[in-house]
Amino acid sequence: MPDLLDDLRAVLGESAVLTDPDLLRGHQRDEADLCAAGMPAVVVRPRDTAEVVAVLRTAATHGVPVVPQGARTGLAGAANAVDGAVLLSTVAMDEILEVDPVNRIAVVQPGVVNAALAAEVAKHGLRYPPDPGSWESSTIGGNVATNAGGMCCVKYGVTTEYVIGLEVVLATGEVLRTGRRTAKGVAGYDLTRLFVGSEGTLGVITEVTVSLRPAAEESLTLVAVFPSTTAAGQAVAGISAQGLSPSLLELLDRTHLGAIEAYRPMGLRTDAGALLLAAADTGPRAAADLARVAEVCTASGADEVFAATDAAEAAALLQARRLAHPAMERFAAETYPGGNGGLIIDDVAVPRTALAALLDGVARIADEYDIPIGVVGHAGDGNMHPNIVVDRADPASLERGRLAFDAIMELGLSLGGTCTGEHGVGLLKRDWLAREIGPVGVRVHRAIKEALDPIGLLNPGKVL
Amino acid sequence: MPDLLDDLRAVLGESAVLTDPDLLRGHQRDEADLCAAGMPAVVVRPRDTAEVVAVLRTAATHGVPVVPQGARTGLAGAANAVDGAVLLSTVAMDEILEVDPVNRIAVVQPGVVNAALAAEVAKHGLRYPPDPGSWESSTIGGNVATNAGGMCCVKYGVTTEYVIGLEVVLATGEVLRTGRRTAKGVAGYDLTRLFVGSEGTLGVITEVTVSLRPAAEESLTLVAVFPSTTAAGQAVAGISAQGLSPSLLELLDRTHLGAIEAYRPMGLRTDAGALLLAAADTGPRAAADLARVAEVCTASGADEVFAATDAAEAAALLQARRLAHPAMERFAAETYPGGNGGLIIDDVAVPRTALAALLDGVARIADEYDIPIGVVGHAGDGNMHPNIVVDRADPASLERGRLAFDAIMELGLSLGGTCTGEHGVGLLKRDWLAREIGPVGVRVHRAIKEALDPIGLLNPGKVL
Repeated sequence: MPDLLDDLRAVLGESAVLTDPDLLRGHQRDEADLCAAGMPAVVVRPRDTAEVVAVLRTAATHGVPVVPQGARTGLAGAANAVDGAVLLSTVAMDEILEVDPVNRIAVVQPGVVNAALAAEVAKHGLRYPPDPGSWESSTIGGNVATNAGGMCCVKYGVTTEYVIGLEVVLATGEVLRTGRRTAKGVAGYDLTRLFVGSEGTLGVITEVTVSLRPAAEESLTLVAVFPSTTAAGQAVAGISAQGLSPSLLELLDRTHLGAIEAYRPMGLRTDAGALLLAAADTGPRAAADLARVAEVCTASGADEVFAATDAAEAAALLQARRLAHPAMERFAAETYPGGNGGLIIDDVAVPRTALAALLDGVARIADEYDIPIGVVGHAGDGNMHPNIVVDRADPASLERGRLAFDAIMELGLSLGGTCTGEHGVGLLKRDWLAREIGPVGVRVHRAIKEALDPIGLLNPGKVL
Repeated sequence: MPDLLDDLRAVLGESAVLTDPDLLRGHQRDEADLCAAGMPAVVVRPRDTAEVVAVLRTAATHGVPVVPQGARTGLAGAANAVDGAVLLSTVAMDEILEVDPVNRIAVVQPGVVNAALAAEVAKHGLRYPPDPGSWESSTIGGNVATNAGGMCCVKYGVTTEYVIGLEVVLATGEVLRTGRRTAKGVAGYDLTRLFVGSEGTLGVITEVTVSLRPAAEESLTLVAVFPSTTAAGQAVAGISAQGLSPSLLELLDRTHLGAIEAYRPMGLRTDAGALLLAAADTGPRAAADLARVAEVCTASGADEVFAATDAAEAAALLQARRLAHPAMERFAAETYPGGNGGLIIDDVAVPRTALAALLDGVARIADEYDIPIGVVGHAGDGNMHPNIVVDRADPASLERGRLAFDAIMELGLSLGGTCTGEHGVGLLKRDWLAREIGPVGVRVHRAIKEALDPIGLLNPGKVL
């Protein structure tokens, strides 16, 4: 009987079936720290839907699990290998198949990079809003599989709001088309959104139809400097209470301000307790709206509020926010020299009214477990990323990090929140998902998984 | 062994278990014409989730199907009785449990009427956008079960965009909570949106958490009068091509204009081929946007374009649009006197670029089958309602009506459209759903139905 690799080569050709040990090791995991990753048998790079079908059929015949992968920029371990698996990378399916400016839709293969789609639709005066931190490298397939968020979500929503149709290869090898190309449609169950965010456990996405918006105008940007994260959190609730809807509302705490300023000096107020960055799409009302945002910030205790003087300064401020992740990685490396500094990147969302309480609580947890935790995130959505700095070489530090992580999850749920606002469940949060959705929720998840993937072929051990 | 009614009375009390034959007959069907309806055994009106659980357990024990009902304003027969069924009406669960203005959410029981929720949140300066034609009488539970649309959808989207969490009683009697109260959340499969639009086939919705928006400003309203529906359809594509996003874009054809003017005289241009009604939320840019809409309409052949002079005139124009349904019912009654005039209300959505072709095609179909068809609908979404006027007493007329209905469905699909933009599948469009989603789509629908309702208790025969 021919082995798995022979069979894969027979259907894909030699060049799409990769077994180089270094390459396999390089594909073992996404960007989540602290998640287990097995050693795959092979990485395959199918070029079209028929080849994806062939991969799934071949893997099923051999009883070998399949783990779909995009750019592996995920932060929950959802793309991590399991031992002996076929890693199905969609990066070779990277064609933008269609941009239809009048119907405001685009049809793309899963391997198209988010930034490439954004650039292409911009030529038509259109915008694909979802902008995860990884947008310059992550793929639309991965964005859809994880229901990726970003900074624009506070006004424009997450990935699922923009996915109107999918082509998906099921574990059976069947090709399912979901959704529509029309602005509206209610024909049958919403299978499209069942697959969005299912992290490769229900099918392999081979084509995505997204809706687009007219390009946003340039935006005005405001900075408010607060003595404490609590005050910044209260300002966010106040902004919402005033009926304002900024197009961006981000928070950076003192740890992040210091880390970013050290990473790329730009004169940030590193003495501040927290900084809020707000923006409003231009248009005649934006200035008035931002003035009201400024008023709320001042009333909440901001000791400095200023507007970006021009587009260049506004872009620099956004760039500072986008540097949070690499800057914190450097901060961790410098905190624990010798290559052992690491980050446990958390992701928790609470009702906006509970944001101040969440931020207070995270500070308490950092004290209690005697471990550095910086907080950054999408304040306008109540979606925060507490980043726990650990010494990977020190089991005691790792253990304190894990305990702090659990304490943050516990706190988030107790405040009426969710264990993941945008990074997903993967391996990192399976237990917390079960806790959040309860036994009936878990049973229904399992029933759906079994209905769609009865042989357990796809991404076993993730989510559930 | 006690019978079904005794058992239901034991758990609900006498007053919530209704068996009056007139009342049963009155609950047999929703507002869809031409759909079969059986004779139910009983109507029950549970008052809380525990009572819904008790109804489902009791019905399951007796092997009797359960059909959930709201206000029965649906247009696809999804709420129609099947013989011997328990009709589970949620109208007694009509409490608005919470309005949280800062987090911009409301939590309601399923029997709350759409207009009641709209009025309550307006007190907080907020808005619940979905506005189906039935909004003054239909319930949020029914709106969610059918994923109801409306006139605001062109800018604000359909019901599913506003549902962030549900409580659902499953066929097993388990109580499932889905979703969240936070602005963002990606914890697990999107079960919330799986239930939205599932027409009572997967569970009984007992609580709904919706997101709200700041109240929209008053809107400016524009009327464009076209010599033909084709020209109006072309204008819609042109408006989209210009990157404009009106908050309302509705079409009325000559048949509807005549019917509405006869029903309530208000000086509509009954000589026009079609009328487009557009609106833009006020704010400094609205006037400029509407001026561009007017330009496109003129360029597409409109022979008259005028703005409403004031809010009262704008309201009157919207009211005219809202009268389309009763006016066409009267038109049908007068076309075929003796109480036999009826309407087959269709619902089809196509890409905006195909709207003119759809309107042309419907006119050809009316000629070909020699039957009056008026068209009205949400032009900005490409979502049209061709209303076929039939003589219920004349089998030949009914047959021509059915053939025309099928021809319209066929045309919609051939134009890249969907068999239902907002009314749903119910009984009316089961065959067309199967045609649209194909055998793999049907198999996956069945697999999910079986995973959630293995005994086939809930709304059998609907959707699939």
